[in-house]
Amino acid sequence: MRMEQPQFQLMDEDQLSVELIDAQYNLKKTRGQKNAKSLVILVNGIELAGKGEAVKQLREWVDPRYLRVKADKPQLAGPKQTLWQPYARFIPAEGQIMVLFGNWYSDLLGSAMQAESPLSDAQFDEYLQEMQAFEQDLKNNHVDVIKVWFDLSWKVLQKRLDAMDPSETHWHQLHGLDWRNRKEYDTLQRLRQRFTEDWFIIDGEDEQQRDQQFAQYILSALKHCPDHPARAKGRWKQAKIPEQLKHPSKTQAQPEDYKPELKKLTAKVAKAMRSDSRNVVILFEGMDAAGKGGAIKRIVKKLDPREYEIHTIAAPERFELSRPYLWRFWTKLQTDDDICIFDRSWYGRVLVERVEGFSSPVEWQRAYAEINRFEQSLVKHQTVIVKIWLAISKEEQAARFKAREDTPHKRFKITEEDWRNRERWDDYLKAAADMFEHTSTEEAPWHIIASDDKHTARVEVLKAILKQLQAE
Amino acid sequence: MRMEQPQFQLMDEDQLSVELIDAQYNLKKTRGQKNAKSLVILVNGIELAGKGEAVKQLREWVDPRYLRVKADKPQLAGPKQTLWQPYARFIPAEGQIMVLFGNWYSDLLGSAMQAESPLSDAQFDEYLQEMQAFEQDLKNNHVDVIKVWFDLSWKVLQKRLDAMDPSETHWHQLHGLDWRNRKEYDTLQRLRQRFTEDWFIIDGEDEQQRDQQFAQYILSALKHCPDHPARAKGRWKQAKIPEQLKHPSKTQAQPEDYKPELKKLTAKVAKAMRSDSRNVVILFEGMDAAGKGGAIKRIVKKLDPREYEIHTIAAPERFELSRPYLWRFWTKLQTDDDICIFDRSWYGRVLVERVEGFSSPVEWQRAYAEINRFEQSLVKHQTVIVKIWLAISKEEQAARFKAREDTPHKRFKITEEDWRNRERWDDYLKAAADMFEHTSTEEAPWHIIASDDKHTARVEVLKAILKQLQAE
Repeated sequence: MRMEQPQFQLMDEDQLSVELIDAQYNLKKTRGQKNAKSLVILVNGIELAGKGEAVKQLREWVDPRYLRVKADKPQLAGPKQTLWQPYARFIPAEGQIMVLFGNWYSDLLGSAMQAESPLSDAQFDEYLQEMQAFEQDLKNNHVDVIKVWFDLSWKVLQKRLDAMDPSETHWHQLHGLDWRNRKEYDTLQRLRQRFTEDWFIIDGEDEQQRDQQFAQYILSALKHCPDHPARAKGRWKQAKIPEQLKHPSKTQAQPEDYKPELKKLTAKVAKAMRSDSRNVVILFEGMDAAGKGGAIKRIVKKLDPREYEIHTIAAPERFELSRPYLWRFWTKLQTDDDICIFDRSWYGRVLVERVEGFSSPVEWQRAYAEINRFEQSLVKHQTVIVKIWLAISKEEQAARFKAREDTPHKRFKITEEDWRNRERWDDYLKAAADMFEHTSTEEAPWHIIASDDKHTARVEVLKAILKQLQAE
Repeated sequence: MRMEQPQFQLMDEDQLSVELIDAQYNLKKTRGQKNAKSLVILVNGIELAGKGEAVKQLREWVDPRYLRVKADKPQLAGPKQTLWQPYARFIPAEGQIMVLFGNWYSDLLGSAMQAESPLSDAQFDEYLQEMQAFEQDLKNNHVDVIKVWFDLSWKVLQKRLDAMDPSETHWHQLHGLDWRNRKEYDTLQRLRQRFTEDWFIIDGEDEQQRDQQFAQYILSALKHCPDHPARAKGRWKQAKIPEQLKHPSKTQAQPEDYKPELKKLTAKVAKAMRSDSRNVVILFEGMDAAGKGGAIKRIVKKLDPREYEIHTIAAPERFELSRPYLWRFWTKLQTDDDICIFDRSWYGRVLVERVEGFSSPVEWQRAYAEINRFEQSLVKHQTVIVKIWLAISKEEQAARFKAREDTPHKRFKITEEDWRNRERWDDYLKAAADMFEHTSTEEAPWHIIASDDKHTARVEVLKAILKQLQAE
C-alpha cells in the first residue's frame, strides 16, 4: 500500500524538536511493554538528493544519543548469503532507533546495476520478495521498518553536479554509479519503481521541505506504538503424536557390528561435509538425556577442531529477548563457519517456550512460518540443514537420570529441573508433534531417531546426515 | 617463571577423559561464584608439530560443546590497534574455555618475520610487554591465559616435510613461512625465546606423548580454581576533593558573546576531528543533569551522522558481567569509527560501581591501573582521548530536576532513582576526587568543567577538545 502522503505543512522547528524528543523517549519506555517496538529507518535515493543532510538535521532535532546511524560499505549479492544477513546485527532492540544508510536495498540496486553481471528483472524481484518476507518477520516481531527514498529529477541532479567542487565527491557515492549518465539514471529509477509501495518518497529539491518531510514522517512512525495482538486467531489444531515418539524402537545394534560401522560412517560423514561446497547446519532437539552430546561427539570426531562450530543454546540474554526471536540465530549464522552444529536450536520457540509459557500462543503459532522462511532462505543460499530429533522413552530417560546420579563424574549433568521437566513429558510430545507437522519441509525434513539404544542412535544420526547431504 | 614441567606419565585415556570432563563441568559451575574463572588457551608453534592434532584429541576427550575453538586469519601489526584487540571478542565468559589458534602471538611472530618490514627486536619486545600487561589484566579479571608452544626440531620438521603429500599443504600454514629455510626457522626460534617464561613447551615428535602432555596440562589448569582475593590490601587513601567540584564556578557567558563563539567553535571542533589522522574518543562523566546530552549535541552538530558513534553506557548485561570489566569497551572500540563519544564510560567502575557497592574494593582499587593501561594502549595506537567531567553544584542539580518535573516533555528524564542518587552526593565527589588523582595522566588528562551555566560549559567543552587535539 502506498503511504498516504498527507497535506504537508512546515512546523515550527523548536516544536518539531520537542515532539521528536518526546516521541523518542516514549519509544524508549515501551521496552518490555505490550506496545514495545523499535525502528529501523532505511535511507536510500539519488545522489545529491540530500539523504545525508536530512539525517543530519534529524539527528540535531532528536536526542542524538538514542538514534544510531550505520553506514556500512556496500556489498554485492553473493550466492552464500541473503542480502539482509550482513545487516541483521544492526537490528535495534526494543525502544531503539537505527538509521541504515547502507542496507539491503542499496546492495540490491548496486548488484543490479553492476556493469559486469547485472541482475535480471526476475532475479531482482526474487531478492525483493526475500527482503519483504524478512521485513514482515521484523514487523511481526516489533521492529518497524521505515523506508525512505530521496528522489531528485535528472535536471536538478545535473544542476547540482555542475555546482559541485570536484574535490568534494564523497566516499558515499552510491556504488560508483556515473550520475552524468542518463541511461544509468533511468535504469536506477526504473528498478526503484519495482520496489513495494510502502516507500516514502521525498523530493530532494527543496532542502527545508525535504528535512521537515523526513522528520515529520519519522515523528509519525515514532508516535505509532499500538499494542501487540494478545490472542491467537482461532483454535489451535493439535497434531497427532507420532508413534515413534511415544514408543521409540528399542532395536539394539549388535556390538560386533557397531564399532566398525560407526568408524566407517564417522569418516564418511567428515569427508562428505568437508567436500560439500555448501555450508552445513546440523541441529539436535529431543528430551533431556536423549544423547545429543554423544551424537555430536561422533559427528566431529574426524574433523579438525578449526573446521566446525558448536552452538549450545540456552535461555536467551536480555539483549536477545528485546529483539526478534530469530535474531540470535541470524547473527550466529553470519560467520564463515562451514559446519555449524546446534545443541538445541531455534525450535526452542515452539518447544520449551511454548510448553513453559515463555512465549504467547500468538508468538509460537507464528513461529512455524518464520522458521520455515528462515530455513528456506538458508537452503536457497547454499546451506544444508539437517534436523534431528532424538526420541527416547520415558523409562529410558528415568534410567539415564538415575545412572547419572549414581556416577560421581556425571552427577553435575542432572538437576532438580531435569526431574521437573519430566512432569511435562506429554506437553513436550505434543509440541514436538506440532513441530514435525508444520516444519518438516521438503528442503529441511526432520529425522526422528529412536535413541533408547545409544549405539543404534549414533549410527542412525550419521546415516541421516549422509542421506541429506547426498539427497540434494 | 618457567612452569615446573613435572615428571611426565601417560595416563589411561578413559581416565583422562573422565577427569577432563569432570573438571570442565566444575569450571562451568564456578560461573558467578567467588572462584569463577574462564580459560583462554593460546596455541602456537612450529608447523607440523601437531598443534591441530593435539587440540583435536583434546576436544575428543572433553565435552566438545564446552570447549570452543577459533582460528582467525592472521593479521599483521598495524599502527591503529594493539595486537590483542581483534581477539578481545573471543575472551570467554566465566566457566567457558576458548582455544585460540590465531592469536596475538601468531600475529606478532608473523609481523616480526615479514620479509618486507620485519620488526626490530625493540619493537618486538614492546609488543610483548603490551601483551603481558593485557594478559595480566585478564588474569586479574578471572581469565586464565594458558600459552602452549608446540616445538619441533629442525631435523624432525624436515623429515615430516619430506613425508608430506604436496597437495596437503594446509591453509593454516603459519603466515606462509618457508619451513625449508633453515634461516627462517632459526629466526623464529630465536624470537620465540624472547617470550616470557610462562609458556608450556611441548615437543611434537612423539604424538601420543604430545597429546597427553597437552591434555594433562589443560587438566591441571582446569582444576586450579582458587577463590579470588576478597579484601583489598592496606587502607585506601582518600584524595582531597578539588574545590572546583565542591563549588563549581558560576560565571555566566554574556548571551551576546555566546552564540557566535559557540558556532565558531562547533565548526572548528568538527574540522579538527575530521582532519586528525588519529581516532578520537571523547568521554563524559558527571552528576545527573550536569548537561552531558547538551554538550554532546554541540560536538556533533557539524558532523555528518555517518562520521561518529555515540555510546550511552548503562548497566552491563549478564554476558558482560561474566567477563573482565573492560571487555565491553575493548569490543566497542574495535570498529572503524573514527570519532566515538561516550555518555558515561569505563569510569563507571570507580564511580557508580564503587559508590553503590557493585564492585568490591579490591576490584575498583585495581581498576585505576587497568584503566590507565587501557588508555595508554589506545593513545599509543593513535587515539586521542578527551575526558570531561561536568561539575555542577548540588543546588543547580536540584533546580534542574525540578524544572524537568515541571516540563511535560522532559518529565521522562527524571526518576525516583535520580533523587536517590543525590543522597550519595558526597560519596560521588569522593569517588571523583580519587579518579582524578589516579587517572589524570599526561596522555589523557581530565578536564573538569564547571557547568552550572550551560552556555559556558558548552563553550569550555569545545575548547577542551580543541586543546587536546592540538596539544599532542
